[in-house]
Parts: sequence; structure tokens; C-alpha cells
Amino acid sequence: MGNTFGRAFRITTWGESHGGGVGVVVDGCPPNLPLSEADIQPDLDRRRPGQSALTSPRRESDTCRILSGVFEGRTLGTPIAIVVPNEDARPGDYEELRTKFRPSHADYTYLAKYGIRAWPGGGRASARETVGRVAAGAIARKILRADLGVEIVACVTQIADLIARDLPFETLTVEEVDRQPTRCPDPVLSAAMAERIDRARREGDSLGGVVTCVARGVPPGLGEPVFDKLEADLAKACMSLPAAKGFEVGSGFGGVLLTGWQHNDPFYRDDAGRIRTRTNYSGGIQGGISNGEMIVLRVAFKPTATIRKEQETVTVEGEPTRLAARGRHDPCVLPRAVVMVEAMVALVLVDHYLRHRGQVGAPPGSR
Amino acid sequence: MGNTFGRAFRITTWGESHGGGVGVVVDGCPPNLPLSEADIQPDLDRRRPGQSALTSPRRESDTCRILSGVFEGRTLGTPIAIVVPNEDARPGDYEELRTKFRPSHADYTYLAKYGIRAWPGGGRASARETVGRVAAGAIARKILRADLGVEIVACVTQIADLIARDLPFETLTVEEVDRQPTRCPDPVLSAAMAERIDRARREGDSLGGVVTCVARGVPPGLGEPVFDKLEADLAKACMSLPAAKGFEVGSGFGGVLLTGWQHNDPFYRDDAGRIRTRTNYSGGIQGGISNGEMIVLRVAFKPTATIRKEQETVTVEGEPTRLAARGRHDPCVLPRAVVMVEAMVALVLVDHYLRHRGQVGAPPGSR
Amino acid sequence: MGNTFGRAFRITTWGESHGGGVGVVVDGCPPNLPLSEADIQPDLDRRRPGQSALTSPRRESDTCRILSGVFEGRTLGTPIAIVVPNEDARPGDYEELRTKFRPSHADYTYLAKYGIRAWPGGGRASARETVGRVAAGAIARKILRADLGVEIVACVTQIADLIARDLPFETLTVEEVDRQPTRCPDPVLSAAMAERIDRARREGDSLGGVVTCVARGVPPGLGEPVFDKLEADLAKACMSLPAAKGFEVGSGFGGVLLTGWQHNDPFYRDDAGRIRTRTNYSGGIQGGISNGEMIVLRVAFKPTATIRKEQETVTVEGEPTRLAARGRHDPCVLPRAVVMVEAMVALVLVDHYLRHRGQVGAPPGSR
Amino acid sequence: MGNTFGRAFRITTWGESHGGGVGVVVDGCPPNLPLSEADIQPDLDRRRPGQSALTSPRRESDTCRILSGVFEGRTLGTPIAIVVPNEDARPGDYEELRTKFRPSHADYTYLAKYGIRAWPGGGRASARETVGRVAAGAIARKILRADLGVEIVACVTQIADLIARDLPFETLTVEEVDRQPTRCPDPVLSAAMAERIDRARREGDSLGGVVTCVARGVPPGLGEPVFDKLEADLAKACMSLPAAKGFEVGSGFGGVLLTGWQHNDPFYRDDAGRIRTRTNYSGGIQGGISNGEMIVLRVAFKPTATIRKEQETVTVEGEPTRLAARGRHDPCVLPRAVVMVEAMVALVLVDHYLRHRGQVGAPPGSR
Repeated sequence: MGNTFGRAFRITTWGESHGGGVGVVVDGCPPNLPLSEADIQPDLDRRRPGQSALTSPRRESDTCRILSGVFEGRTLGTPIAIVVPNEDARPGDYEELRTKFRPSHADYTYLAKYGIRAWPGGGRASARETVGRVAAGAIARKILRADLGVEIVACVTQIADLIARDLPFETLTVEEVDRQPTRCPDPVLSAAMAERIDRARREGDSLGGVVTCVARGVPPGLGEPVFDKLEADLAKACMSLPAAKGFEVGSGFGGVLLTGWQHNDPFYRDDAGRIRTRTNYSGGIQGGISNGEMIVLRVAFKPTATIRKEQETVTVEGEPTRLAARGRHDPCVLPRAVVMVEAMVALVLVDHYLRHRGQVGAPPGSR
Repeated sequence: MGNTFGRAFRITTWGESHGGGVGVVVDGCPPNLPLSEADIQPDLDRRRPGQSALTSPRRESDTCRILSGVFEGRTLGTPIAIVVPNEDARPGDYEELRTKFRPSHADYTYLAKYGIRAWPGGGRASARETVGRVAAGAIARKILRADLGVEIVACVTQIADLIARDLPFETLTVEEVDRQPTRCPDPVLSAAMAERIDRARREGDSLGGVVTCVARGVPPGLGEPVFDKLEADLAKACMSLPAAKGFEVGSGFGGVLLTGWQHNDPFYRDDAGRIRTRTNYSGGIQGGISNGEMIVLRVAFKPTATIRKEQETVTVEGEPTRLAARGRHDPCVLPRAVVMVEAMVALVLVDHYLRHRGQVGAPPGSR
Repeated sequence: MGNTFGRAFRITTWGESHGGGVGVVVDGCPPNLPLSEADIQPDLDRRRPGQSALTSPRRESDTCRILSGVFEGRTLGTPIAIVVPNEDARPGDYEELRTKFRPSHADYTYLAKYGIRAWPGGGRASARETVGRVAAGAIARKILRADLGVEIVACVTQIADLIARDLPFETLTVEEVDRQPTRCPDPVLSAAMAERIDRARREGDSLGGVVTCVARGVPPGLGEPVFDKLEADLAKACMSLPAAKGFEVGSGFGGVLLTGWQHNDPFYRDDAGRIRTRTNYSGGIQGGISNGEMIVLRVAFKPTATIRKEQETVTVEGEPTRLAARGRHDPCVLPRAVVMVEAMVALVLVDHYLRHRGQVGAPPGSR
Repeated sequence: MGNTFGRAFRITTWGESHGGGVGVVVDGCPPNLPLSEADIQPDLDRRRPGQSALTSPRRESDTCRILSGVFEGRTLGTPIAIVVPNEDARPGDYEELRTKFRPSHADYTYLAKYGIRAWPGGGRASARETVGRVAAGAIARKILRADLGVEIVACVTQIADLIARDLPFETLTVEEVDRQPTRCPDPVLSAAMAERIDRARREGDSLGGVVTCVARGVPPGLGEPVFDKLEADLAKACMSLPAAKGFEVGSGFGGVLLTGWQHNDPFYRDDAGRIRTRTNYSGGIQGGISNGEMIVLRVAFKPTATIRKEQETVTVEGEPTRLAARGRHDPCVLPRAVVMVEAMVALVLVDHYLRHRGQVGAPPGSR
């Protein structure tokens, strides 16, 4: 259970780190959308390991194949199955994990829950699982852009104690972000981050950080009252990513320091006659529903759990032991997490877009 | 849509701030659980307005009635319908809101989405909506306590810049928390918080803060891989509460400052032979599944949007205007939010408990 | 579980035969629909017991009250809670059922499943449970009529071996059906049926029959491939009604006697340029999707299980005994089942209508 | 949408008749179940075309591959992805269908709904879609057998007007059924049926029929009140199969001819102390919940729509034309439908089995 996400635009992902491959089935996609592997591969390439010295050296081409749901270049409205085979799986690297639990990884909890676990490479608890999300997210993104003009851009804004400030989120592009190997668009800070990540790698240690994501052009009206508030679904989406530990929308934890009078976003009518807010502490969402401003959210990722540096742990029998993990791991998941966050945000927005037009019968923002 | 939460223990809430009442239908509750209104009323009393000078003066007894699903004092396994009538609704207080949007409230977004809104009292976007959650949460709590020995305790740990430190979460009780009107269990800090809230109230302003919640006694094995990770469902649950802006589990955003070697929780075997971790940066969850340690999470709530202090806004026609909101509002939602967070955490845990025994066929923690 | 129906237009019903009442929460209703109790009460009146000598003499006014989701006469897009109190519950009549299982009723199976059961009146397994369905169905019907011009009409076409033939389904109206106490619109046959039902009643026995339902004006395009085929969802909807034992669409079991060449419905273009079929063995659905022809389905209902005539059974301890059931029961559920079938058909169609416009983004039939 | 079935044991199928292949993702499968392709292939072989002269000559080996969710021969509790490539797809055979609608097939309705359709081979509306169901059904079956001792056996009981009577359903085995190419276990009748099917094939026509399915050993307690009654979910499951037009449980439409006193199944206690019924008009289900007797259901399948005999139809532009369909089609779907019905029944039962132990916390039948 728990491998399906979305209610109207529903994705079901599958696949272990080591096994036949990973993939996704997308159900509920609107028909007649032009679609081919070329729409999906670029985001998979941005996600895949081995892009730079900062990421895992595992060599996966992550070449996707669409097996169904597309006919003569257009979506049929039926399920789109996308498969990516595993290529560079080396279970031998993980032999030690057969008998020892990695601290703060899912080895122990999977075994505690299921009484069995795929010890090579973490099985379903590997970042490799996100291939399916990113593939589906690329479709979501295409729909949002085509139908609503939505642009989703995420970037790294913190690694350890290095914090990016004053980034131009109103105009920032994916291309600008991707220009830096860290995916922090401030070149100077990015260089410092890269150096820190590289040092962690050399020391057999790892680092965490923060991804900030914006969605521009989201019309007012997406999201639903009560449990499926837009921020609630975004929180679930982002907190379901491997290593995520925190989520904020708009002012987040920092908003606590303001009074209501300071924090409230005053309404005004702009020159085009649209109702806007002067500030955006709300992060583009009020009462669970988008208000037409830029959606802004932040996700904290902990330092990667699998490290080479030796640590205290126990064996599967509970005996005390020590572990210096081998295998190929990212010393810092952040550069790749950027793509995963974008995908999850796209999936939430497209789901609420389809749900909205189902219930209301008119495109969002049309009132 | 969006008014149902949970997959195995499913609740559906309904009701506007001003109207016939509010309520909840609980489906999937195990049969033969002793249950009466007396199990539910205490949490409703803790949630309701008018408890102290710090909360809204609206006078609601919030007396609940169970209309179905219980027979001769025990649950039948069929839906439990709980209704709480609205008593002290004064739509007249809200007359100005018929024509003006409150900044950072849901007035504008509901109208943008639906083309209609229940302007008296915020309709479904009122904190009154949480009555149904708290009633259902009381049932969830009872099951968790009876079957697993789980205790869920939340408290206020921050109001504006007043931050509680070193609270005894390992032993803290609901009774200790409730002893303070702010629900911050540090009496000295609580007094300072109360003074700050009272000042905000007098100034027609409002304050935000942070609720910290722990769940003790959760066995290893609750939660599911990928999208329904325990932290993801907890994030959704908490971020769906009115005014929530941020969520953290375990080390949260602060964990970003540690390296993997520092952040990883070493495993050891305790004297009772149980596998434990020496630290708990994970917040009791690893890879989306509980590991048997205390679950720790934090939720940031923004300052209440509805304030008496005058602000810039627009009318429903988009004309510039100013608004000094009347009506009865909490100057700070935090004391009451404590009960809402506990309810949502209980609902997530009981849902995963029932899901676990469905798929695995054995109680969690039994391996 | 199992008390929620529909994906986009979702209803959750609750309530036992004897208890505080019965009701429904409707989530996902489009906003701005004019709605009041006056839209719902007529169908509840058609469903309720005590309408004629052919139905249970239990006296229930079945007066509904809308508690939420409607504001100033229009739907808000938020959950609509509808409550009907129980009035004429007489648990004393059922005292014998505390200790004995009625043959072919749910007494034994509920106890086997849940270890507890609401023995007075059958609890959730009473036809009283359908109040919520009929109330929600009235809303569904109103939407379908207003938006698509759909008319749903059901009637009794068989009681025991009395079978109605050549009914004018192309034009039949609810009013014509309701003119007969049996709800079989053939007056001569209806009189014979009434006499047979009355005889069964006098003998302490009961009768079964068949309801035929048509939906006229359904545009092409409702329904979804594979599991949520329109006929599959209609089958589930109808077979979930108390006492239903069989379901057919179009030619049904009789279609088995034809060859493909005889059974296929030839396409032609009518004078208005619409694509039509010359015959309608398909019953208005092909490949799970409506084709614009009249939807035709039939539901078989078994004779009521609760009868006065003495039968062999066992006590809850498994001891052999005999039972001549008291209480107030319909000697034949068919006249009231007509209204229930209409409601379930309306619920399925409106759900697929909203789902269609969600995925496809255009009204059905617009291509 | 509509490509996922089940709530606790959830399957999502994908794939068109002509394209990369077909497959299924199974989510919610209990962990630690021994599983390999060898458990699945036999049912796929029973389903596949080209088994005998009575079925489509399309040559597909239907060799399945498990890509995830199984590790060292046991299920992990994570999604099981199964893929079957398409081998003998010949789109050229379908060229005429690019421009003409087959009567009573899904060609027109898919186009009306989605504005696009996969004309070669019927796309998603092909019986090839059932590969995924049968693969998942094989897993369901294995769980039911291992945990509960349930045996599911279906067979053909009617082709056109040839009706099998007095079959030994209490003891009938899959092997006995499979011995006949028609899958009607009465050898004499089977020969007559085979002759009739062969004649239809030679004439370019097709035949329909009825499949009867029993499930033996189902414990009391599976199924849920109201919408998810066991018979309702079975009806949906079976009516979602291609060409299904009717569904009955127990006495079905024929039960209408009995009075309540005749139709009710008297309870007695058997020598082993179990509560049983003397007759089984209920078909093993009372009030939506299994009662421990044999579950009996029947499904009517219409004659195959695609036939060689010439028929009236229209082109996609609505112009009158005639069609004599080529391609490789079953003259009678019944022999292969047997396997599909068994799969769907297994999927419903395993889903309710897992749901039951989730809510009730004890195996069914344990009270």
C-alpha cells in the first residue's frame, strides 16, 4: 500500500533499487496530450546519479520507455506505463548490509514491519524509487504549462550552514538552476557548497540542506477545504521524499515571529484589474486554496544516512557491531532532490487542477 | 471533496461556522470498543472557545451526540456519526465580511474557487471545522491507548519569540499541559506568553507560535513506504489544520546543520533486548516507518488572520477599502491548536495501525 | 468501512434502524446549485414506509434536514450533511431477535464478522439505511437534469411470476409509475400484483420481483475503461441495495441466446446528424462507456427475509429453535426499491459526469 | 482513471492490445509470501488465446516477468510489477477499423469520450487487457488458499441455448474444468457446445454464454455493510469484464419466483458444531457478508462483438458503410472468460480478507 498518489491524476510507482527496474503507471491523464519519451527523459536525466562529482557514481542511463497509454504521439486517456530498467546494480557492494542495520536508514524499520527486506541497495527505500515520480511529474508539468502557463522551479537554498539569500524567484529558470552542479543558482555560494559537499564525501560523511520551490502562474482556486488543503497535499508530497524532515509554505516557521497585522497580506487591485496581495507571507495559498500569487515552499533534507565513516549499530540479531558502509551513495542528496521536489509539486497541482474542473465545471481562475 | 481523511480509519467532517452544526462520520472503527459521549466530550471541551481570556469569547458548549454506530455502549463496526449543534452563531457580527475580504483569510479564495462563500464566520474555513476532527481523534486515541499503550501529548513550545526549552517530553502528561491556560507546560514562560497574547488581544492584533507533539509507545512498523510514509501522512494531517504554515519531524530544519555522522541515530540493544537508538534525530520514524522511539513533530501556526486592527483590503467587487474585523476571534490559536494536533496525530497513527494489521496480519511490533 | 460511494461525487451514509437517526454526507457537489429540503423530501416520501397497505406499517415521516453545505439556498461546494431522525422505533418488537437469527437476514453474518450486532430492527442491515442514499440521489438527479437533461425512471416489472411486458420506457414518467401502489405502471397487472402481495402479507410470507430502470438523455462518454466501466459501477450500486440478487444491463442473461450478428447494434446517422444505434441490446453502454442511447438495467430482489411464518433456525448459542418474526416488515420490497434503484443510478451517473469533465475538461457529448 | 481495483489489495492494470505490452502493479500484498513467475504463468496460460480451435488464433506466449516486489523468492510487501510483452500484434489487420466503428464494440464510445482511440485491436477495450487481472488474481488465489483454504472454481454452464445442469460444484476442480476445451465440465454437452462454437466461427458469427463460479471454504465474515457488500463488489468485479451483461448471486433472477418462506435458508448446527444453512439460495452471502456456505455466482457474456459477417455501421465521419471485420477474434469468449471470472472473484475475496483483519484485528471466521 501507499504506492499510489493523487486522486484525479493518480500515479502508482514500483521498483526496488536492485531488481528488474523501476517505473510508474499514470492514470487519469487527459487525452490528446502530445507525449513521448522526449518529454520525460530530460527530467530523468536531471535526477539521475552520476551527473557530477557531487552525486552518487552509480551509472544508470535511466532511459525510460512508455509502454502504454500513448498512440500516434498523443495520450489516449488510458494508463501510461513507464519503465526504466536497472542497469548498474551491484548487490555485492551491499553484502555487509545483509546482516547489519544502517543507522537512520530504513533497514531496521522495513524488517520490523514486513519481516523481510531487500537488503541490497535499500530496496524500495532507495532514492532510486523517485524515478517513477519524476517521470510522472514531467507529464504533470507539461499539462500545467500547456493549460495554465504554470512554471515550477526549485533550487538548493541551503547546504549545512551555507544559506542562499535574495534569489530572484520571480524570474528564476530551471536552466539557471541547472547551470550550477549544486543547483544553487548563486554561483559564489554554489562553489562554496560544492567544496563542502566534496569535503564531506572525502571524509566519508554527508550533508543536508534545504530546497526552495516556487510555482508561478497558478490561478486562484486550486486546493480544497479541510483535509486536502493545497498546503497539506504539498506537505505530504514533499515529506514523502526520501530524507525529508521539514516543510514550510510561505512564511513557515519564521512567520511565527510576526503579529497578525504584520503577517497578513493586504489585498489590492492591480492595473490589470486582478486582485493581488502586496506581500506574500501566505506563500500563494489561503485557507487551503491558491490565491493567484506565487506558491513558495521549502523542504529540509537531512544528511544522507549511508556514510563510509564508521558508526555504532547492531546486527539483524541485535548484536552490537560497527558499520562503515560501502556502496555508491550521494554525499548530499540536495542537488538531485531539486528535481524530485519539482515533480511532487507538479503532481499535486495537476491533481487539484483536474479535481477543480471536475467539481466546478470551469477552469480555475475563470470567475 | 477533500473532507475525508484516512484510508482504513476514515473520517468525513462537515459543517460551517454558522449553520445547523458541525460533525463527523467515522467509518472503519473496530467493533466492540466501549464508547460513549463521555469518551469524546473531554477533548471537545479542551478544544472549545471560551475556555480562558486567551481564546475566542464565542460561547459554545460543544456538546456532542453520537447518533449511530454504538449499541449498548460498544461500537458496532458501522459508521459512528457525531453531531455538535452550533449555538452561539451571530451572523450579524460578520455583516461587513459580506462585502469585504479579510486579508490572509479564505474569503477571497473560496469565492474565487466556488463563486459563492458562507461569509458569516468563515464557513468551512473556520476553526470550528475542527470539532469533527477532535471528536474522531478522541476515538482514535482510545484505540491506540487500549491496543498499543500509545500516549499522545502536545503542548505549546513557542509564542512569537518566546521559546520553551528542555521540556520533559518523555514524561509530560496532558494534565500537566492543561494546567497552563497557554498550554505551555513551563509555568514561568506560560505566564509571559499569556501576557503577550493578552497584549495582542488588547491591541486588536494576534500572535502565532509552535506546537510540539510527541507520541510515546508507538511500536516499530507503523507507516508505509513511498507516498504514505508516516511522516508524510503526519505532515498532511497537521498542515491541514487552519493556520498551519510549517511542519517538522525529528531534527527538522535544524538537522540540516549536522553531518550524517552526527545526525545518524546509532542502534544498540537495550537491557530488555529491544533494538533502540541512542539519539532520536529521526523523530521516531526511519524510511517512513516508526522505529519504536518517541515520535516527535512540530507544527508552526501563523498569527490569526482575523484582527480588529485596521488593514488594507478590497471589496468583493475589487474596490480598495479598509477593514477592522469584528466578530469573536482568538488572538492566538495556539492553546486550542494543541488539541487539534493531538487529534490529527492520533488519526494518522490509528489509520496506519489498522492498515498494518490488514496487510501484515499481525500486530505491529510483534516480530 | 464500505459506507462511502463514489469518487468525485462521494456520499457517506450512516445510521441504524433503531438509534438516533440516519443520514448522509455528500462531498464533491458542485457549488451554486439551488438546493433545499424541498428538493430532497419528495424522493424520501416515495421511499418511506407506510405509504400503502403494501409496505411496512412503520410510521416514519422521514423529514430531512440539511445541516451544512447550503447557504442562502445554494450549495457551497462543501459537504452537505442531511439528517433524518428515527421516530417510530420500537425495539421491543424485536426482543426475540436478541437471541435468534432470522434465516437469510444479516443477523448471523454481522455477529460472525463483528462479534456484536444491533439486533433491534436489523441495525445497519435494515432498508432504513437507504434513506441516506435516496436523499443524496435526489441531489444527483437534480444536477443531471439541470446540466444534461437526464431523466431516470424505474418501475416494477415483475412480482413473483407476474411479468410486465411492452412498457413504454421511451416516455414513461415517474408520475405514471407512482400512480400505482405497486409502482408497476401497467394498471391491470399492478392490481394483480397488489393482490398477490396482499395475500403474501396475510399469509405471513413475502414476495420478490424485478425493477427495471432507464436513464434517458445520457450523453455519450460517461464511464471509464476497465474496472470503472459504467455497467460495473451500476452493478455495484444496485447490488449493494438490500435484497438485490441479480443485475442485468441491456440484453442481460437473455442476450446469451442471440448470435453476435443478431445482438450487435448497427450504427446509423439520424436526421439530426447524431450517431445512433438501430437496436439497443447494449443497453446504452458499449465498452463501459455510454453511447447516447437509453441506459436500461434490471435488478432482481429476493423475497423479504423477515416473515411471520414460522421457520427453522438457531439461537445465538447455536441451539435449534423456531422463529415467527414479529416487527413491521414489507411483504414485498419492490414498490419502495424502485426509488432506491433510481437513486443509485443517479449517483453513479453524476459521479461519472464529474469525473469525465475532470479528466477530459469538456462536457460529455461535446465532441 | 478506473484502472485500479481493490482497497487493501489494490491492483492497477495498464496496456493496450497493440503496443509495448500489458501489465499490472499489485500493491498491498502481504509480505513473505513465496512467489515467482511459476505461480502466475499457469493462469496466464489458461487465459491466453490460441489454446484451441475455439479461441482466437492470435499467438501470444503471454510470458510474464515479475519486475519488483519479490526478493529471494518471497514478497516484500512492496508493489509487485508484472509485465507481459505484446508479441503477435498485427495492426495491419485492423486498418479498416481506423475509419469504421465496429457495432457494439467500444470504438465509437472511446472516441466520443476521449476524442482519440487506439484503433488497432481495440486498445484498452480488448480482452488482452485482462492479462493483468489474471496475473494479479493468481497471487490473490495463492493467498486465499494458503491462509483460508479457499478454492475458486468457475466453468461454462451455458453457450447459446445449451445449458449445463446438475454440475457437482461441491467438488468440481479446475483440472476437471480444463479437461474440456469449452471449459464446460459436462463432456457430452461440451462437445455440443464446441460444435456450435465452431459453426459460429465458420459462419463469421459469434456466441455468448454464462460462466458459473463457486468459492468454497470462504469463512463467515467477509464483506462489509452497505456499499461494499460482498455481492456488490463481486458484481462490479465481474461486470467490469469485457462483454459481461448480467450478474447473479445465489438464486439470482430465478429467486424472484419463490416466496420468502421458500427462499429463506434455514439455519442449523452441524455435527462439527458449525452454524450452517440447509439450502443456499443466498449463494453464501447474507446482508453483504459471507456466511460460510459456498459462494455461487453467475455471469452472462454477450456474443463477441467483432465478427466477420457483414454488418451495417458508420464511418468515423458518420457516413453509412458496411463492415466485415478481419483480425483474430474469439467466436466465443466463454472458455477464456472462466479464468477471468475466477481471477476477479479471487481479487474481491482477498481484498475483503485483508480489510477484515485490518478493521476487526482477527482472522475471519475466528469468532
